Amino acid sequence: MMTTSFIQQLKTAWKKTNSLLCVGLDPDLRKLPDSLMLAENPIFEFNRKIIDQTAQHCCCYKPQIAYYSAFSAEDQLELTIAYIKSNYPYHPVILDAKRGDIGATAGMYAREAFVRYGADAVTVNPYMGGDTLQPFLDYEDKGVVILCRTSNAGSAEFQTLSCGERSLAHQVAHQSLSWNKNNNIVLVTGATYPEEIGQIRAIVGDMPLLVPGVGAQGGELRAVLENGLLEDKTGLMINSSRGIIYASSDNDFADAAGEVAHAMSAEINSIRAVL
Amino acid sequence: MMTTSFIQQLKTAWKKTNSLLCVGLDPDLRKLPDSLMLAENPIFEFNRKIIDQTAQHCCCYKPQIAYYSAFSAEDQLELTIAYIKSNYPYHPVILDAKRGDIGATAGMYAREAFVRYGADAVTVNPYMGGDTLQPFLDYEDKGVVILCRTSNAGSAEFQTLSCGERSLAHQVAHQSLSWNKNNNIVLVTGATYPEEIGQIRAIVGDMPLLVPGVGAQGGELRAVLENGLLEDKTGLMINSSRGIIYASSDNDFADAAGEVAHAMSAEINSIRAVL
Repeated sequence: MMTTSFIQQLKTAWKKTNSLLCVGLDPDLRKLPDSLMLAENPIFEFNRKIIDQTAQHCCCYKPQIAYYSAFSAEDQLELTIAYIKSNYPYHPVILDAKRGDIGATAGMYAREAFVRYGADAVTVNPYMGGDTLQPFLDYEDKGVVILCRTSNAGSAEFQTLSCGERSLAHQVAHQSLSWNKNNNIVLVTGATYPEEIGQIRAIVGDMPLLVPGVGAQGGELRAVLENGLLEDKTGLMINSSRGIIYASSDNDFADAAGEVAHAMSAEINSIRAVL
Repeated sequence: MMTTSFIQQLKTAWKKTNSLLCVGLDPDLRKLPDSLMLAENPIFEFNRKIIDQTAQHCCCYKPQIAYYSAFSAEDQLELTIAYIKSNYPYHPVILDAKRGDIGATAGMYAREAFVRYGADAVTVNPYMGGDTLQPFLDYEDKGVVILCRTSNAGSAEFQTLSCGERSLAHQVAHQSLSWNKNNNIVLVTGATYPEEIGQIRAIVGDMPLLVPGVGAQGGELRAVLENGLLEDKTGLMINSSRGIIYASSDNDFADAAGEVAHAMSAEINSIRAVL
């Protein structure tokens, strides 16, 4: 069977959807609209409606696994990913799980993400070193999205420490080049530190970047695009989770999510048109 | 209701069991003895028999979640933890999950570990910074086991980088002192780098250390104990997973696990008696 690599899948999605927006599916069971509370699979029903209203405005989806596992709802994560793959096959699914462990265990985490859930990519944590990422990287057609400079305020505690010639985050970026034999790495660089996006872009060339932290976390779109876009005006997945999925807490949540996703994708496109 | 803190629970376990051994429950579904393959819950049945034969020789258990989630067996992890808590209430359960994410999501991971699974402690990754660990630390009676110097060969790639006055791992140890307002932190320091155990012990005083990497990974017991023991000859949870649970691949696996656990705990005790 011919398989498509994650990077190729992402490039196709950028082109076909004309969007750089990634929609984060982080549904807090305690915050769902009343109308869904009696559904058999309320989290899945919430996601399904959000997905149907946002798919034409985004290039990919990123479910965060903790929102499912905290409520014993792994089955609803499976349903969500299967729904995207059946109905919106051009949209890659990045499982946000921030996994990482020694070899044999990392292999189990890779199996969880890629075999059990059928995700196209998974987020991982580099602290333990490149050998712990190898079992993920060995799935050559899957994407491995490595934390580099995260969007939270406390990311500076370790990630900006000067480790010899460069900061820890830049060292991770640098090392990712040597880990990238299967050309399947993406780095996470928070929108809240746009100058870092530019510095990391300079290290990793045309490697795709996943950019969380716009919207609820306050990152600014123009600065992100100025620092991170490639020549062809792609190269970024700009994630918004809460800003989209909680655009309305009422029964019009899906329409509201679609409107916010549309507006955000249009804003990104209007900025990239003039850069 | 009176609750006992994790550290107090651990001190009681060290005393009552006269053991520093932690048994890692990392059961690979593909490697279980034939006799269990037809059981309704083969992973749980495997664990239950291992637990019954090892409990008198260890102070705690550490199930690694990836071995369950890779096979959609979260329910068998729940059964395993509930079994330990019902039958061996003096043995704390450390959920090995190496979680870490920004605030709201970290809260969900903490809920997964402490509320859903009822674990007494969870392992976490410090790369994203102290603010991402706070939702775990806020469960003041639960233990938060932070990766510091891990046992794998590639741990040197980032953890030994010189970040100003000290290495990254030592910086994590140093910062953990400031995060430890609830006195519920434990650090992970691999048996494969015993000199590091001594250096980290010097930074963190009497903070407990979880030490993986003896047995299958080659770490040496005497060097671990010389470097890590406190004055009262406790302070360490020395983990073995594969060396115990796969002591035999046949139907005598539980007896064999019990014998290895007994021998390992006795060896630890004979060394610490003369230190």
